[in-house]
Amino acid sequence: MSVENKIGTYNFIAEPFHVDFNGRLTMGVLGNHLLNCAGFHATDRGFGMINLNEENYTWVLSRLAIELEDMPYQYEEFSIQTWVENVYRLFTDRNFAIINKEGKKIGYARSVWAMINIDTRKPADLLTLHGGSIVDYICDEPCPIDKPSRIKVTNKECIAKHIAKYSDIDVNGHVNSIRYIEHILDLFPIEIYKTKRIKRFEMAYVAESYFGDELSFYMNEVNPNEYHLEVKKNDEEVVCRSKIIFE
Amino acid sequence: MSVENKIGTYNFIAEPFHVDFNGRLTMGVLGNHLLNCAGFHATDRGFGMINLNEENYTWVLSRLAIELEDMPYQYEEFSIQTWVENVYRLFTDRNFAIINKEGKKIGYARSVWAMINIDTRKPADLLTLHGGSIVDYICDEPCPIDKPSRIKVTNKECIAKHIAKYSDIDVNGHVNSIRYIEHILDLFPIEIYKTKRIKRFEMAYVAESYFGDELSFYMNEVNPNEYHLEVKKNDEEVVCRSKIIFE
Repeated sequence: MSVENKIGTYNFIAEPFHVDFNGRLTMGVLGNHLLNCAGFHATDRGFGMINLNEENYTWVLSRLAIELEDMPYQYEEFSIQTWVENVYRLFTDRNFAIINKEGKKIGYARSVWAMINIDTRKPADLLTLHGGSIVDYICDEPCPIDKPSRIKVTNKECIAKHIAKYSDIDVNGHVNSIRYIEHILDLFPIEIYKTKRIKRFEMAYVAESYFGDELSFYMNEVNPNEYHLEVKKNDEEVVCRSKIIFE
Repeated sequence: MSVENKIGTYNFIAEPFHVDFNGRLTMGVLGNHLLNCAGFHATDRGFGMINLNEENYTWVLSRLAIELEDMPYQYEEFSIQTWVENVYRLFTDRNFAIINKEGKKIGYARSVWAMINIDTRKPADLLTLHGGSIVDYICDEPCPIDKPSRIKVTNKECIAKHIAKYSDIDVNGHVNSIRYIEHILDLFPIEIYKTKRIKRFEMAYVAESYFGDELSFYMNEVNPNEYHLEVKKNDEEVVCRSKIIFE
């Protein structure tokens, strides 16, 4: 199979309500676009959510790591490329490149996905899905950023709480993956966004939360440019963790 | 000028993170698309934000009213048409039609805009802008929904508070128009969205709010299907009002 068919390319424009006060695309919106591209790419090749839902399976995002040297500015066009790097029995690695209006790669992202049976919530064997055809799309396109790392948060002091509301909830009844990103970024004072930019952003999705759940946020400042965060629901179970590196 | 050039048509797909737990596009995302279409339409005709910013002017949204009999479902394609209905000295009326994947008009929207000088914040005379050329785009396409109405909220009991955060703020440093919609919809219990749908949604934008402002929300239940809402900043100035009619 040709590399062209293995890599999907999708075009965007940085919409005015999708940029922050600096005029730069927000990390939440970029995350949304990345996940959409994953969906488009998989659907076009027969293993997307729509195909899978009919067979009672769904993709579950486990990890996301984004590293950028620049962010598209308001009204700028940009594009995202995505491809499958690896397929294991229970996980697949999907990578992305973010390309600015001049065609320069300004960043990359890595994601790790599992597939589960909707009824049993048990993981599916990716190597037997559609006769293992997903393996045909594995592509050795370079993705020169670190893999998602282990994130450990030791601070026991809750710094913010949020009750999951209507706008947080997706079609599966869960708080959606993008909303966590927004809520986490909202923990920081505005000054940090005035003087620094996010160089690397990681999410580890651990468990689902639901409407009405009380989300509590914990943070370790590793150094003035690196923060590790944890979100728990109802002060018990860890829902997700995040690592943010500013520069 | 031909009607074709007066009406702009833009195509969308209901993305997975843009639908609510019912799988229907959220009112906030629809509002975002409407405002983007207004921008595309105006920019393509020489009176968009980008053109105006260079001349030190900007569009300010004053009113938005949306009325729908249906909402696009997840992954469905839909399109939005927009055109200028009227141009007055200080305001212009811009209307929209929302068209489902079968090409049926499932809803309409009306908006009212002013233009202000960025430095003085004073309103500009639309009839002299670009030699009054905006008037050439006036179009008598039907928009069979009521005009935005007066909204009056008498209840003095605050039902929720929200501190404006990083994710709320747009490139102008203001809480963005779409975030108000989301925060207002989040005031309602999930049950209402399980049993009813929003038939008509109105926003009246009165003043700007900024990062760190405390937004407080007031509501009158006119009847079990009609709610009038008001958002104040720092318990003083009215920022916006909204009317929601469920069915």
